[in-house]
Amino acid sequence: MTTYGGPPAFGSFPAPVERLIVQFSKLPGIGRKSAQRLAFFVLTLSESEAAEFGEAVAAAKRDTRLCETCMNITDVSPCAVCRNDKRDRALVCVVSMPQDVAAVERTREYKGLYHVLHGVISPMSGKSPDDVEIASLLARVQKGGVAEVILATDPDTEGDTTALYIARLLAPHPVRVTRLAYGIPIGGRLEYSDETTLLRSLEGRREL
Amino acid sequence: MTTYGGPPAFGSFPAPVERLIVQFSKLPGIGRKSAQRLAFFVLTLSESEAAEFGEAVAAAKRDTRLCETCMNITDVSPCAVCRNDKRDRALVCVVSMPQDVAAVERTREYKGLYHVLHGVISPMSGKSPDDVEIASLLARVQKGGVAEVILATDPDTEGDTTALYIARLLAPHPVRVTRLAYGIPIGGRLEYSDETTLLRSLEGRREL
Repeated sequence: MTTYGGPPAFGSFPAPVERLIVQFSKLPGIGRKSAQRLAFFVLTLSESEAAEFGEAVAAAKRDTRLCETCMNITDVSPCAVCRNDKRDRALVCVVSMPQDVAAVERTREYKGLYHVLHGVISPMSGKSPDDVEIASLLARVQKGGVAEVILATDPDTEGDTTALYIARLLAPHPVRVTRLAYGIPIGGRLEYSDETTLLRSLEGRREL
Repeated sequence: MTTYGGPPAFGSFPAPVERLIVQFSKLPGIGRKSAQRLAFFVLTLSESEAAEFGEAVAAAKRDTRLCETCMNITDVSPCAVCRNDKRDRALVCVVSMPQDVAAVERTREYKGLYHVLHGVISPMSGKSPDDVEIASLLARVQKGGVAEVILATDPDTEGDTTALYIARLLAPHPVRVTRLAYGIPIGGRLEYSDETTLLRSLEGRREL
């Protein structure tokens, strides 16, 4: 056919759309094709809706920080949990990620405080103890007033290693160190545990 | 245990994070849990990276518009295809969505112009012919210079209905109206077709 042939004239999307696709592609689990789908969804929004969405992305990072006490992500430091007089300040639950705090809170039974490590010790990923919030946990314990540290890292190799490392580090200090009980399926993720399983883990925690 | 019990004190995330989760939840195929995962990924970015991401979301909508000729999404109107002197202006390929333009462009063989409907006629979704860019297509044909209109809507009920509707509308006009050939699997989506299948569909297009 005479209407076909010749060099490709136009292969991609307008620059602002292409830039958004690139940004969406950086998100975990989002490939190029999904990123396109998301970008074109944004184009179906009104300009003010898209602006609001964009502002929410920027603000989530800009308007949050780490709580000076527990290292959880918060908009006001100390965070709502650390400021709450009704929480048991002698009890500290150590979790890997901020999402894990939300999971434990969903049990509606835990009344202690938290400490968020922001990761686990992982030689494979080049994460040493200095790369997670272990020094701040130790300082917190040394300051006194903590009777028990519950190690609630995920029950996998890296989570167990991290728990063991912290347990050894805290051994010289007058603090009870416990680990969540079995109940969370091995290989599973704390973040996705149902409330009942997680509550049972809390109740059955054992000395480490 | 004395350390447990009492009302839930803290159930969700800091407001800026919660707002971002809500925004991500609006995206197609993203549920609450995925939205949380994406929001926490954004928190791992630097503040300038998050700001850049947010700006990309706002800019994608703010800095694009519809091409005055073909209704495709573009940063400059008329769009790059419509401005290109090497394209065959007598040939117009009618597609449902901007993504479909990119799919046809990937054949690297099509040299005509486009017309983007931004949807299909769908009584089920309450989309009438007035809700898609059919009037602008008719005006374009009436203006003259168009020898052939290729109807490249998806080969499903709504795409076929829309193609038939447009074919009838254009019947009184001195223009050839064709439909993409079979080759695209029925029930499939134009957007995801491989180049070879799509090229075969173009070459085998038939009178409607």
